[in-house]
Amino acid sequence: MFRQNYSSALLEDAVEQFASLPGVGRKTALRLALHMLDLPRENVEQFSNAFISLKDRVRYCPVCNMISDDGTCPICSDHRRDRSVVCVVESLRDVLSIENTGQYNGLYHVLGGIISPIDGIGPSDIHIRELTDRLAKGGINEVVLALSTSMEGETTSFYIFKQISSFPVTVTAIARGVGFGDDLEYTDELTLGRSIANRQIFKP
Amino acid sequence: MFRQNYSSALLEDAVEQFASLPGVGRKTALRLALHMLDLPRENVEQFSNAFISLKDRVRYCPVCNMISDDGTCPICSDHRRDRSVVCVVESLRDVLSIENTGQYNGLYHVLGGIISPIDGIGPSDIHIRELTDRLAKGGINEVVLALSTSMEGETTSFYIFKQISSFPVTVTAIARGVGFGDDLEYTDELTLGRSIANRQIFKP
Repeated sequence: MFRQNYSSALLEDAVEQFASLPGVGRKTALRLALHMLDLPRENVEQFSNAFISLKDRVRYCPVCNMISDDGTCPICSDHRRDRSVVCVVESLRDVLSIENTGQYNGLYHVLGGIISPIDGIGPSDIHIRELTDRLAKGGINEVVLALSTSMEGETTSFYIFKQISSFPVTVTAIARGVGFGDDLEYTDELTLGRSIANRQIFKP
Repeated sequence: MFRQNYSSALLEDAVEQFASLPGVGRKTALRLALHMLDLPRENVEQFSNAFISLKDRVRYCPVCNMISDDGTCPICSDHRRDRSVVCVVESLRDVLSIENTGQYNGLYHVLGGIISPIDGIGPSDIHIRELTDRLAKGGINEVVLALSTSMEGETTSFYIFKQISSFPVTVTAIARGVGFGDDLEYTDELTLGRSIANRQIFKP
């Protein structure tokens, strides 16, 4: 079923488009394209328009840079949330993941990327300036850094730490260690090593 | 990550659309929608247009009803193929599956469905008449029935068999039995029972 002649360039193109999605192989792409062919035109139109609309009409929260259809996002607008804590993340994905845990009640700051000299992304290309502007307005006591532990993530965390060190805020970072339910045997050495070095008082 | 507030109706809609595809869950749908958001507008447009084009501009081969952008399909046009054998299948999917085996060199006839009284699909709703028209033109010696063994498939096979019995053609059906590499232990009783009843001379 791979790279074969589908007898139609239109079908071939639809397959190619589905196959361009992350995690979708050509066999699945063919199944999806044939599914599209079976759908009423109206549904195909709805399907296609959803992405064009998303791309054209998406707006970002002027406060935290989170995706938001109209002005300030629901999280920044929610007055039941703790407005003195701001969690700094790379992307919208991370906000959704943290929200999903139900363990965080503060606000966010979405950088929209991380510093990566190899990809030509410097500090001014991501929303660090907006973070210092927020801190300058006052009312924030803690900044939680929740960036990845990659070289780029560490660089970005360090850069932000230096940029905000003059503000009267506590800078914290999310805990790293052996995951809950993970076997020590299968945990990588770096994680296990650091989790021993950063051991904490046992609270049963 | 399920049924949560994505803080954007546009994003929610894009996720819903991806989640409407067969085999795509909401978690994958979110990943795909965020991927769309990251793509340049041009790529999103290409993606969306592919399906509208497929739906609007798709044509079918006037001979075999296979999908074809322009007139007679590549299979019917290929003069290296055996034009005396026609394999009757339910859909385009089946043509692609059989082509993929590389074991068949004849032509096809795509019914575009099977007889299913429950769904209100009768003999005149699928391309059976076009098959008898092809046989009436002569030159075809064998019709291979390759429909499913469901109640509807069996009904359709029997109906076609009766419709074409007056033509001087051999009517065959694809072999059914225990799959290559399958354990007898895990084969359903019907398949195993029939594979014993239909046993063939062993040719080592």
